[in-house]
Amino acid sequence: MRLDELAKILNGVVVGDGSVEISGVAGIKEAGRGDITFLVNPKYESFVSTTRASAIIVANGRKSMPIPVLQIDNPYLAFLKAVRLFRGDTQKVEPGVHPSAVIGKGVKLGEGVSVGPYVVLEEDVELGDDVVIMALSYVGARSKLGTGTFVYPGVTIREDIVVGRRVIVHSGTVIGSDGFGFARDGEVYHKIPQVGNVEIGDDVEIGANVTIDRATTGTTSIGKGTKIDNLVQIAHNVVVGENCIIVAQVGISGSTEVGKSVTLAGQAGIVGHIKIGDYAMVGSQAGVTKSVRARARVSGYPAAPHEVSKRLYASLRRLPELIRQFRDFEKRLRVLEGKEPLDEGADDVEAADDD
Amino acid sequence: MRLDELAKILNGVVVGDGSVEISGVAGIKEAGRGDITFLVNPKYESFVSTTRASAIIVANGRKSMPIPVLQIDNPYLAFLKAVRLFRGDTQKVEPGVHPSAVIGKGVKLGEGVSVGPYVVLEEDVELGDDVVIMALSYVGARSKLGTGTFVYPGVTIREDIVVGRRVIVHSGTVIGSDGFGFARDGEVYHKIPQVGNVEIGDDVEIGANVTIDRATTGTTSIGKGTKIDNLVQIAHNVVVGENCIIVAQVGISGSTEVGKSVTLAGQAGIVGHIKIGDYAMVGSQAGVTKSVRARARVSGYPAAPHEVSKRLYASLRRLPELIRQFRDFEKRLRVLEGKEPLDEGADDVEAADDD
Amino acid sequence: MRLDELAKILNGVVVGDGSVEISGVAGIKEAGRGDITFLVNPKYESFVSTTRASAIIVANGRKSMPIPVLQIDNPYLAFLKAVRLFRGDTQKVEPGVHPSAVIGKGVKLGEGVSVGPYVVLEEDVELGDDVVIMALSYVGARSKLGTGTFVYPGVTIREDIVVGRRVIVHSGTVIGSDGFGFARDGEVYHKIPQVGNVEIGDDVEIGANVTIDRATTGTTSIGKGTKIDNLVQIAHNVVVGENCIIVAQVGISGSTEVGKSVTLAGQAGIVGHIKIGDYAMVGSQAGVTKSVRARARVSGYPAAPHEVSKRLYASLRRLPELIRQFRDFEKRLRVLEGKEPLDEGADDVEAADDD
Repeated sequence: MRLDELAKILNGVVVGDGSVEISGVAGIKEAGRGDITFLVNPKYESFVSTTRASAIIVANGRKSMPIPVLQIDNPYLAFLKAVRLFRGDTQKVEPGVHPSAVIGKGVKLGEGVSVGPYVVLEEDVELGDDVVIMALSYVGARSKLGTGTFVYPGVTIREDIVVGRRVIVHSGTVIGSDGFGFARDGEVYHKIPQVGNVEIGDDVEIGANVTIDRATTGTTSIGKGTKIDNLVQIAHNVVVGENCIIVAQVGISGSTEVGKSVTLAGQAGIVGHIKIGDYAMVGSQAGVTKSVRARARVSGYPAAPHEVSKRLYASLRRLPELIRQFRDFEKRLRVLEGKEPLDEGADDVEAADDD
Repeated sequence: MRLDELAKILNGVVVGDGSVEISGVAGIKEAGRGDITFLVNPKYESFVSTTRASAIIVANGRKSMPIPVLQIDNPYLAFLKAVRLFRGDTQKVEPGVHPSAVIGKGVKLGEGVSVGPYVVLEEDVELGDDVVIMALSYVGARSKLGTGTFVYPGVTIREDIVVGRRVIVHSGTVIGSDGFGFARDGEVYHKIPQVGNVEIGDDVEIGANVTIDRATTGTTSIGKGTKIDNLVQIAHNVVVGENCIIVAQVGISGSTEVGKSVTLAGQAGIVGHIKIGDYAMVGSQAGVTKSVRARARVSGYPAAPHEVSKRLYASLRRLPELIRQFRDFEKRLRVLEGKEPLDEGADDVEAADDD
Repeated sequence: MRLDELAKILNGVVVGDGSVEISGVAGIKEAGRGDITFLVNPKYESFVSTTRASAIIVANGRKSMPIPVLQIDNPYLAFLKAVRLFRGDTQKVEPGVHPSAVIGKGVKLGEGVSVGPYVVLEEDVELGDDVVIMALSYVGARSKLGTGTFVYPGVTIREDIVVGRRVIVHSGTVIGSDGFGFARDGEVYHKIPQVGNVEIGDDVEIGANVTIDRATTGTTSIGKGTKIDNLVQIAHNVVVGENCIIVAQVGISGSTEVGKSVTLAGQAGIVGHIKIGDYAMVGSQAGVTKSVRARARVSGYPAAPHEVSKRLYASLRRLPELIRQFRDFEKRLRVLEGKEPLDEGADDVEAADDD
């Protein structure tokens, strides 16, 4: 395909030679002759001069490049479309139920469903059209998976879970494990039965080895379009809104409500029973102990508004120097108060400087 | 069932109309007509006026409520009993061994055992009475599981592991993986064979995707009644006492000893080769680098007594202001020392205040 | 075996009675009569006088011990060899393919391969000689595992993954899950297909429930000899060098490059798109936000050179006291400036000291 033909499909503008042949797509470092690549992250600017790619997708209004350019509003989205165009779906799965799959009583399977080897579907499971359950995954009784949902190998979805349409669940993930709830009786803890469930909205993606606990009563829910990275913990009765980004190793404690379009960066921890407002951003490793207002950006431990945290950490770096100056002040005060002779004090400071 | 009948079973006192019919149990937000709910967390106080529940379980000595009340010593425990009463066991499992289960030589199965599809029990495994091993779980050679232990789908229990009675293991959890031990030889690391095992006490519950490593030699052990949340890491030769609470994403490094009734809050990290005393509490995200005394409460990074940490973080918040004042002091000192004229200094301070 | 015979095999020197019989090997606390143990960690020094071991392996140049000693350059390595000598391989696996394994078209199996029950090998998988795939593990299409690689139960290796020789992969681990990459389009996120792969070098060990994402395009790679502990997250396009130690619950964000012989301590988090230089050491729970120079040692949040971080935290501990003194200075300054009478101020300070 010629670059100008690709530009027409992606709805972009060519700057430079539109006749170059594009036969593939790759990252700026990996790209070779015939590949189109893209530039969004300024950290990769320097690779523009060394990439072997035949063309590059950039944002509108970018200055000239040493190779032919495809200018477009959203380069990342255009790259996505190019990957789909040239690579197709890498994970091809044949429809049909593998003879080794264990299908419980009352299971309903939609059209075009693919159920892999050693899959276990318990009683009354419902799979919508084109659902894929890959090998060695388990779906508990009465759980329902919507049209086009894709479950990778080795996933556990417990009983009574509702999963929307076009959801992707990666390997090792557990949906609907019991919430962590115990009633204390002296030194002994008694388990509170966790009889609620989990609901996952349409177009959610859940990474590998994630855990999402079922509610004590009621529902743990993940809003549509939300994307969850690997090894994330979502506790019982948590409610996550739509289109959130939850990065790897984040933990959200019980009954916390996360608004829509919230970003939780890697390893952040959120205590239970609070609210994170819409469009809020929580920094990586932040420890959020109080509710966060809509559109706020918080970071640090305990989490504070990002500008405050930045100032605190900047101040902290100056603290050792401050303590040193402070001792000097003490001396100068004592001199002014007539408690210490001037010269001796000065000598002490000299001496202190030597070690 | 009437509320006053339920009160008799739970050993509580009705305040208000004891004749209301109770047919279910639910959280304060989810409850509908006919449900009994409960109130422990003061954050949910405001829901009392809006809940649709027909009655509410509260602690003794609580003031009046707009709906009939069941007063009791331990509302959480009463709620637990009510859930069991009205909901029964949600996870019903038929006894019997699924024909697809692979049962090794010398395996001993107790009465009423349930072994699900595609379970693999290696040689000489012993399951006590009423043990449940759900689909797609693996138990290694010579491991023993006590009476009434329940293993959810997709669990791996390696060889030579000893699991007590009434233990619950959630999906994706790995018990007995090799400890992380290597002998360094120049730049190369050689694996130290991990030939110890793991012992899990009675009534322990282990969440989803937890990892508990086997000992190098000897035993990694979890005391009876301890409850472990999801995605927790317990390294080789760790010893955890009885009735501990270990919240999600905590990591305990090798050979550390945790006493009894210890609470480790979410994402806390504990270094190796130390002791956490009985009844100690470690705050969320704390980084514990030294042994902790019995009944101590520590938090922060590096972890310090909670009161100290709180004071430090409070002080830290005042640090930027302190640095500003400090500059003012410097000026005032210089004026007093006769190194700077009075007026000029004052002007500077004014100017600084404007931005 | 006599101690002096063992010393010859391990190439060490006996101090004390070389005729004692050694029949086993164990940690210093667990050891009994007939066992040899070892001492490396000074924290275990006090156990030397109480151990029931019959002999002890120590570093050259150690002072005398109450029991016979085997002196050697690298006691940890000698212990490793002794464990192998006395315990043999604990995890014995029979070669052969279990009849229940699902073997796709075009799969190539080397000599002596062991494939356990309910293993699924998709089309065109290649297993080198002596590869072991234990029960309930999955290997995706076209993936290749080198000679002697050992995969524990319940592992998922996705399609197109390249695993070297003598690699060990523990249970629950997922290699090749999709990277976390989305193109934003207004409020909606579109998935960027992740069409790259993962390459694991020779002699790598990967703990339990680890996640290693495949690259967007190109390769996520782990250098030979690197050891990864449990619950670690390695994002797409990360490159880890040779002989690194990555401790439990570490997270490495996308496209970051980790040099060789780097140590990342437990729960550390590394942002994306940076470089960690060769031989660098990152402290536990550190939050690394910028590239780290070779041989540097960093800790804290945000990560700074370890010496700087230590000083900061030491200063921080003095901050509450500093704030108290500061108020005293303010008073003394005001007195010197003639704004406050001397006596009154002094009294106030006394009063403040009492509580």
